[in-house]
Amino acid sequence: MRTSVTTPRLGKLRESMGDLDAIVASSLENTYYFSGSYITTIRAIPDRLALMLIPREGEPTFLVCTIEESLARKESPIGDVRGYVEFGENPVDLLGKVLVEKGLDRGTIGYEARHFSAAYRERLSRVAPGVSWRPVDDLLGRLRAIKSRQEIDTLSRGALATEDAIMDGWESARPGRTERAVALEMANGMMTRGLDIVSFLCLGAGSHCGDAHPTPGARKLGKGEIIRCDVGGIFQRYQTDVARTAVFGKPTSKQTKRYEAIFEAQRRVVLAMKPGASVRELWKMAADTVTSYDLPFRAPHIGHSIGVGLHEEPMIQPYSDATLEEGMVFYVEPFIHLGPRDAYHVEDLVAVTPDGGLVLTDPHERRGELMVL
Amino acid sequence: MRTSVTTPRLGKLRESMGDLDAIVASSLENTYYFSGSYITTIRAIPDRLALMLIPREGEPTFLVCTIEESLARKESPIGDVRGYVEFGENPVDLLGKVLVEKGLDRGTIGYEARHFSAAYRERLSRVAPGVSWRPVDDLLGRLRAIKSRQEIDTLSRGALATEDAIMDGWESARPGRTERAVALEMANGMMTRGLDIVSFLCLGAGSHCGDAHPTPGARKLGKGEIIRCDVGGIFQRYQTDVARTAVFGKPTSKQTKRYEAIFEAQRRVVLAMKPGASVRELWKMAADTVTSYDLPFRAPHIGHSIGVGLHEEPMIQPYSDATLEEGMVFYVEPFIHLGPRDAYHVEDLVAVTPDGGLVLTDPHERRGELMVL
Repeated sequence: MRTSVTTPRLGKLRESMGDLDAIVASSLENTYYFSGSYITTIRAIPDRLALMLIPREGEPTFLVCTIEESLARKESPIGDVRGYVEFGENPVDLLGKVLVEKGLDRGTIGYEARHFSAAYRERLSRVAPGVSWRPVDDLLGRLRAIKSRQEIDTLSRGALATEDAIMDGWESARPGRTERAVALEMANGMMTRGLDIVSFLCLGAGSHCGDAHPTPGARKLGKGEIIRCDVGGIFQRYQTDVARTAVFGKPTSKQTKRYEAIFEAQRRVVLAMKPGASVRELWKMAADTVTSYDLPFRAPHIGHSIGVGLHEEPMIQPYSDATLEEGMVFYVEPFIHLGPRDAYHVEDLVAVTPDGGLVLTDPHERRGELMVL
Repeated sequence: MRTSVTTPRLGKLRESMGDLDAIVASSLENTYYFSGSYITTIRAIPDRLALMLIPREGEPTFLVCTIEESLARKESPIGDVRGYVEFGENPVDLLGKVLVEKGLDRGTIGYEARHFSAAYRERLSRVAPGVSWRPVDDLLGRLRAIKSRQEIDTLSRGALATEDAIMDGWESARPGRTERAVALEMANGMMTRGLDIVSFLCLGAGSHCGDAHPTPGARKLGKGEIIRCDVGGIFQRYQTDVARTAVFGKPTSKQTKRYEAIFEAQRRVVLAMKPGASVRELWKMAADTVTSYDLPFRAPHIGHSIGVGLHEEPMIQPYSDATLEEGMVFYVEPFIHLGPRDAYHVEDLVAVTPDGGLVLTDPHERRGELMVL
C-alpha cells in the first residue's frame, strides 16, 4: 500500500474540514492548488472534468480523462491517478465507483457548487444517492486567500511584467496608430516578459473608452482622447490584471481632475489596507473620495483578491462582511464611467501588511498622474 | 410598447422550442449567438451571469450586470436590457422577477444545464418554484452546429491565420532556440494576422512532446526531436484550433512513417465527410487506419465541431449517434501518443460538402508530410 500523500496545503485543508468526510475539488483553481497539476482544459473544455477526491484521512485520488493522465502523473505527487475515457465513461460515474471503493458512499462530502454544472450535479445525486453533498466554495476560497511568500513573489513578478508591457504599448502610441496596434504591443510585451498566455486584452480609445471590456479595433487614436486598457494573463500559473488610463496629447484640466479622483481613492484605500480592515469600509472610502470630487460613483466593487483565478474572494465590495488578513493580496481598481468617451480606471496589485497596503506594481509611482502619450 | 425583436437565429430557435414557454441562455456561446453581444467576462468571471430570456412569443430580455450594460445595449438589437448590481442583487433573483412580470413563473423553461452552476441552479428552483426547468444544451448545440456562409468564412479566415502563424514559429526554429521562443513567434503571428486573443498555446519538444497540452518552456530544441504544437485563439468572436507536428533536423524513417499514419487517417476521414456520414464510423475509420500501420490508437475523439466555443457538438467520437449535415464544420485531429518523446498530431478545419470534406486550412497541402525544420 502506498503512503498517503501529504503537502502543507492538504494538511491545512484537512484541518478545516470539520465534519466533512471528504472534499471533491473540480475547478482549475482548486485542483491546481491542491494537486500541483495545471490542467488548462478544465477551463477550455468544461465538460471534460478533472476531479480531486480528498478524504479526511488517507490517499487523495485524482480522476482525469486519459488525455491528461500523463500530465497529471508528471506534475502531481498524487500516486492514485485514475483515467476515464472521454465520452466512454462519465467522470461522475467513475467518482461514484471510487466513493464506494473507499467507503465514502454514505458520507458528507464537500463539492464546488459554484463550479460544478447543474447537469453533473444531478448525476452526482444519482450515482451517490447516499451522500450528503455540501457546497465548500467559500471554505476553499478562504484557504486560497492567504498567500505564501512564494505565491506573493510570483504574483508580484507577473504584475510588474504586465505593467511594463502596458508601458511598451503606450510608448508605441502615435498619431494614426490604431487601438489594435497599441494593444498588440502590450500583448507581445506580456509574452516576452514571461507570461505564458494573455487572458484578456481590453483597450478602448475615444468612443470605446466607456465600454467596460472593449475589444481593441481598427479605430485610430485621436488627439485629446482618453485611452483605457485593462489587460492580464497567466504568469507561472497565477493571474495578472493591470488597468491604466492615458490621454493621447495634452489632457484637459477636467480630465486631469477626474483621474485624480480615482487615483486619490486608490491611494486612500491602499493606506487603509491593514489586517482587520473591512472590505465594506474600504469600498465606502473609495466611493466617498470620488463623490467628494462631485463625481458619481457606481462601481459594484473596487478590488478583488487574485491567485490561480482572476476574481477570488474576498472582493472589496459593499455587501460583504469580510475583513483583510496578512497574506492577502488584491488588485485595487477604482473605476468611474462618466460617459461613453469619459471613463477612468487604475488597477494595481497590493499586499496587506500591518503598516497598510504595499503596492507591488508601479515601483516608480507612474500611476500617480494621468499618463500623457 | 416596443416591437418584438426578431432575427433569423431567434426565428429558428422559436421554431425548435416545441412545448417550451421560454429558454434562458447563459453561456458565452449562446448569449452571443442569440443576442449579438459578446460579453467576455461570462468566461473570465463565471459568477457574473449574463442571462438571455427568450420567450416563445414576445420580446427577449437580456439581464447583465451594470458593468456590462453599455456593451450589451451597443452590440445587441434587444431593447429590453436589465442591469443588476453585482453583489447587491443575485442575477437569478432578477430573472425570477422578470418571469413573474411576463407570466412565465408557471411555465416550462429550457436552460443550459451544462453551463449553469449547481449553486445558481438551486437558487433558480427557489426563486421560481412553479417553473419546470428542462435542459436544452443539446437543442441549442444542434442549432449552432449548422453554420451560415458568413460563419464558415470567418472560421476559415481564422484557421488560415492560425496556420500561417504556426509557419512563422517553425521558420524561427534554430539550434539553441527554446520551445518558448518558437511559441512566442506563433502567438505574435496569430495576433498580427488578425486574432483578438490567443486562447491556448501548447508546444512541446523532445521529452515534452508527449504531454497532451504542454506549456512551452525554457527547453532548447535538440536535433532529431519531435516538436508538437496545438494553438488557437479568437478571430472575430470565433475559435480557431490548429495542430502540427515537426521534427528538428532530419527525421528517422520511423518518425516519417508514424506521421504518415495519422495523416492518412485524416485524409481518409476528410474524404468521407459527406452529409449523412456517421461520426462513429469516421472515428472508426481513423482508428482502423492507424492500427493498419501496426500502431495503437487510443484517442477518445478525432475531431470536434467549432464555433464561438472550442469543442462544440457533434464530436467525432465512437459513442455518438450523430451524423454530418451540410453546413457543419469540424477540426479533424487524429493524434497518437506512442511515448513521452514520440507523439504525432495534425489538425485542420474541414467543411462538410456533398463531395466530401473540404479542407479550409492548408491551401498548399503543407500538412501532407512531417514538417522538417
